[in-house]
Amino acid sequence: MTDVSEEMYALVERMYPLCRSITGDGVRATLDIVGEYIPLQVHEVPTGTQVLDWTVPQEWNIRDAYIADPAGRRVVDFAASSLHVLGYSVPVSATMPLAELRGHLHTLPDHPSWVPYRTSYYKPDWGFCLAQETLDALPDGDYEVRVDSTLADGHLTYAEHVVPGQVADEVIVSCHVCHPSLANDNLAGIAVATFLARALARETPYYTYRFIYAPGTIGAITWLARNAERIERVRHGLVLACAGDPGHLTYKQSRRGDAEIDRVLRHVLTASERPHRVTEFTPYGYDERQYCSPGFNLGVGSLTRTPYAGYPEYHTSADNLDFVSPAAMADTLAVCREAFAVLDRNRRYLNLSPYGEPQLGRRGLYDALGGRSDTKQAQMAMLWVLNLSDGEHSLLDVAERSGLPFDTVAAAADALRGADLVKE
Amino acid sequence: MTDVSEEMYALVERMYPLCRSITGDGVRATLDIVGEYIPLQVHEVPTGTQVLDWTVPQEWNIRDAYIADPAGRRVVDFAASSLHVLGYSVPVSATMPLAELRGHLHTLPDHPSWVPYRTSYYKPDWGFCLAQETLDALPDGDYEVRVDSTLADGHLTYAEHVVPGQVADEVIVSCHVCHPSLANDNLAGIAVATFLARALARETPYYTYRFIYAPGTIGAITWLARNAERIERVRHGLVLACAGDPGHLTYKQSRRGDAEIDRVLRHVLTASERPHRVTEFTPYGYDERQYCSPGFNLGVGSLTRTPYAGYPEYHTSADNLDFVSPAAMADTLAVCREAFAVLDRNRRYLNLSPYGEPQLGRRGLYDALGGRSDTKQAQMAMLWVLNLSDGEHSLLDVAERSGLPFDTVAAAADALRGADLVKE
Amino acid sequence: MTDVSEEMYALVERMYPLCRSITGDGVRATLDIVGEYIPLQVHEVPTGTQVLDWTVPQEWNIRDAYIADPAGRRVVDFAASSLHVLGYSVPVSATMPLAELRGHLHTLPDHPSWVPYRTSYYKPDWGFCLAQETLDALPDGDYEVRVDSTLADGHLTYAEHVVPGQVADEVIVSCHVCHPSLANDNLAGIAVATFLARALARETPYYTYRFIYAPGTIGAITWLARNAERIERVRHGLVLACAGDPGHLTYKQSRRGDAEIDRVLRHVLTASERPHRVTEFTPYGYDERQYCSPGFNLGVGSLTRTPYAGYPEYHTSADNLDFVSPAAMADTLAVCREAFAVLDRNRRYLNLSPYGEPQLGRRGLYDALGGRSDTKQAQMAMLWVLNLSDGEHSLLDVAERSGLPFDTVAAAADALRGADLVKE
Repeated sequence: MTDVSEEMYALVERMYPLCRSITGDGVRATLDIVGEYIPLQVHEVPTGTQVLDWTVPQEWNIRDAYIADPAGRRVVDFAASSLHVLGYSVPVSATMPLAELRGHLHTLPDHPSWVPYRTSYYKPDWGFCLAQETLDALPDGDYEVRVDSTLADGHLTYAEHVVPGQVADEVIVSCHVCHPSLANDNLAGIAVATFLARALARETPYYTYRFIYAPGTIGAITWLARNAERIERVRHGLVLACAGDPGHLTYKQSRRGDAEIDRVLRHVLTASERPHRVTEFTPYGYDERQYCSPGFNLGVGSLTRTPYAGYPEYHTSADNLDFVSPAAMADTLAVCREAFAVLDRNRRYLNLSPYGEPQLGRRGLYDALGGRSDTKQAQMAMLWVLNLSDGEHSLLDVAERSGLPFDTVAAAADALRGADLVKE
Repeated sequence: MTDVSEEMYALVERMYPLCRSITGDGVRATLDIVGEYIPLQVHEVPTGTQVLDWTVPQEWNIRDAYIADPAGRRVVDFAASSLHVLGYSVPVSATMPLAELRGHLHTLPDHPSWVPYRTSYYKPDWGFCLAQETLDALPDGDYEVRVDSTLADGHLTYAEHVVPGQVADEVIVSCHVCHPSLANDNLAGIAVATFLARALARETPYYTYRFIYAPGTIGAITWLARNAERIERVRHGLVLACAGDPGHLTYKQSRRGDAEIDRVLRHVLTASERPHRVTEFTPYGYDERQYCSPGFNLGVGSLTRTPYAGYPEYHTSADNLDFVSPAAMADTLAVCREAFAVLDRNRRYLNLSPYGEPQLGRRGLYDALGGRSDTKQAQMAMLWVLNLSDGEHSLLDVAERSGLPFDTVAAAADALRGADLVKE
Repeated sequence: MTDVSEEMYALVERMYPLCRSITGDGVRATLDIVGEYIPLQVHEVPTGTQVLDWTVPQEWNIRDAYIADPAGRRVVDFAASSLHVLGYSVPVSATMPLAELRGHLHTLPDHPSWVPYRTSYYKPDWGFCLAQETLDALPDGDYEVRVDSTLADGHLTYAEHVVPGQVADEVIVSCHVCHPSLANDNLAGIAVATFLARALARETPYYTYRFIYAPGTIGAITWLARNAERIERVRHGLVLACAGDPGHLTYKQSRRGDAEIDRVLRHVLTASERPHRVTEFTPYGYDERQYCSPGFNLGVGSLTRTPYAGYPEYHTSADNLDFVSPAAMADTLAVCREAFAVLDRNRRYLNLSPYGEPQLGRRGLYDALGGRSDTKQAQMAMLWVLNLSDGEHSLLDVAERSGLPFDTVAAAADALRGADLVKE
């Protein structure tokens, strides 16, 4: 267990109690915490702003919500968990018999002790989420229900963090910040993204890396709407979510399926010999839905451990601090770093001496003693880079075709460039 | 067993006794019967007409043919089965010893009780086909042989039936009408085609469907020669044969292999979970040979149950009314209807809101309650259609990539078109 | 065992004792022997000549070399085997203790009775190769070492033999002639190439076949440097090596992977039902490295039995006359002849009657009797050639798609060309 893994877990713990939604102070508080780790540029977009086909909704804030039984006891209480209130509930203050109340209650009959996560962003409604066993224990009678919330013109909040690179071409890393007390979905994703940004900032990467912390769907759509000219510079991207559960890693490919990010993740996951899954793109899941809509069609994939809706704890109170672990987040972070290390160095070279092999020996790049059959990997990598550097093959192509590690191939390319035998 | 299946079988029974060949009154009588079910446009093409590389031959008609043994008994008799005479036999009236007669007799030693089907269209000849056991029982002696046939200038006869569609682009359905008393090859094909035409006529299909009833090879070549300008409008096609035997369905792909008709049949056969086979194109079999010759290279496949020459009864007297069944023909008809239902609705749409997802909720196309993991198939289909409607993907592409039923995908496209979110 | 197989083995036996290197009289003596079988054009390229990125080195010749033990006995003696001296050893005449001598000795500890093959072409050095068990038996003391060699300006020698064809387009067959007493690598390759040339010369092939006998690497590079204009005419090629060992045949594909030579070898090896392996291109091995460098990227593959470094005897004294056999060389020769017989006839035809099938019957190319299901292979081949002769498919395509033997397909094409139904 490294320090970083514990730091990521501590960050998840801090963010966990907050009540996040697609707008409101819970998002702002979350970004304030992240901002203690990396500098954030926070954007506030007013209610009513047209963003692509959508409109930024009213801002929702909530102070308290509860159901009190006929004896006056709070049997469901927002103070105990942010999941208990239907997201975007309109204010209510009433007393009603249980039979009438039931129409506003959401439970999970198959998991009677878990509380579900439900929202009603675009249809005015109010409701409570509770355990089936809590509901079953409620006596008949009149119940006091109260949601002390506000729905009013305000703002949608999202943030960005940029790690400057050698070129203006960008890699985006996007994670959603709109889910309330759900640890894996997506506090673990936020934590991994944040420490990934910190790691990249210690290097001077080739690409410029942009981290986007935004509410799901409407937040990504808002970012896309406000960054029309930037999108042409987005070369690759990754949506990070469900980054801390005990399952194996899953890479969901971009809509293009053969985008460079797809090839890089497939390569790194396979080369690392981790158990993993690579799945086809589907227009459902997280914000890859927006980045990969046909008008944008960006090379953006999605990395999770167990994917969207793929575990019983998904969108329930069981997606809690016990469900995520420092080790799982560290593993997700490691794969992100390995993948970006490949992506960042993956370029096409041109062999400047393409007719026959150049004489590596006189340049000190080749063993003088001939006849042996155990030619070194570094020499093989140089021969492969020379042979495939025709302007069409990238170093990742060379690594995959030769079966040599990407690092060895990249080092060979460096040596050959140093000897003026290849150029970018 | 539906009424239609019994009606198809009854049609096969009526056509069975007739002596068909590539020309002559047997073809006309067959088309007269079909014409009682659907209106036919009958074409008569004179002997000597040049059709592509071929010439329409003389017309052959036959009234009687027999072999009488030394005792005067008819031991082989055309009146008992049209198979007994070699197709296109020239007239003969002679008496000859058995030894001399043998050179004109065709049998199947491996199936001693079956009568083979043989022809000699383009080399003047006469002959009889009989069971090996009949031949073995013949005593030596002089035999009277008589073929009362005519070979004379006349016509080649074929027919068309057109189901008008919304567009002039055509789908052709072609079946051969030149085989004598062979039930599966091709009376079952004729029957299925006829009831397919009746079913299509009750709708207003998108494509115009043209049914071609023509003698094999020379008939298809004649149709192609006389329809040079129409061929550009033929978008898809299907050759129907061997439609009633007990074997599984076999789809033989067009020469192109990836024509839309190929993809549709593969999809429908797979989706229907029928046991079936899909085979590569070969330049042999039925009239797909002509439609898929390299100069035309049409998207025309061939649907059979057991394919050409794939069953022992093929081209023998055992391909009789017992060999075909109402249920098998009904099954073939059902697959044709399913395939044409897909083909007819398979179009490319363009997403009119391709940047991010359009907000389906405010258009009443999406559930208001968020957070649940059991998103409905109809909503998934809309997301898929939106995501892939970039002008490159057809609805069949969407169905195959999403794994959703084609009907669900087509319904989603209809809903999105109704909301002005996609256009054709 | 054919005469040719014995003749090839006898040729290997004659060449075996000679001390070959990348330059020098050993190469000349080898080419003199080959020249007794087929006429050779021998080229001498002066030391210092620039060839692509390389320079022709000084010429190396050796008369004697030995190590004498303290008692004066020759314990390692070049006269016993040309392998005993490090290739390109500079002259030395000295006495030194065993401890000092060890730095110049090369052994194979894992195979203590075998002598390794080692060279130092481009770094001035001297050394001896010997069995580990010989080294282990040497007593301490002072040893006399002597290498009576010359390194001086001279020439690099290579040779060509051309079998003229009907067209100037060329097929090259290349084998290296620089290895000393190693039977499989590459005397067997030289022998097979030589008898392949003799066999081709008895025909008038379509292509012009050029056989190149050259030292490895520097020799191939020299040929490429001196034949810049010819290279445009090189359509296909094969590097022959390791042609006589007991292993199965291995075809290593060209860098292009789908060059016609690749398809031909795959087809012939599969059709012949020999156990064999087909491997991907790698930029290591024999002179396919040079022919397939990205600037040339020729369609040149490599045929061996057990490939480069794939057998323990590789580059050791165990690659001797017992390791190769007449039968193995005959088998390699047979596959080369089969492959070139396909390559030489593999052309694209154009169907001159592409609309429908032409009437083969009236041209005497088709059986008159119809209805039978056992259509002859020759007729099927004609239908396939007609159907695929659209200018895009070669006869090899036809053979592979139809599953018919290439010879049958080529004969069908000849018949159709004779009937003016196809043209080249």
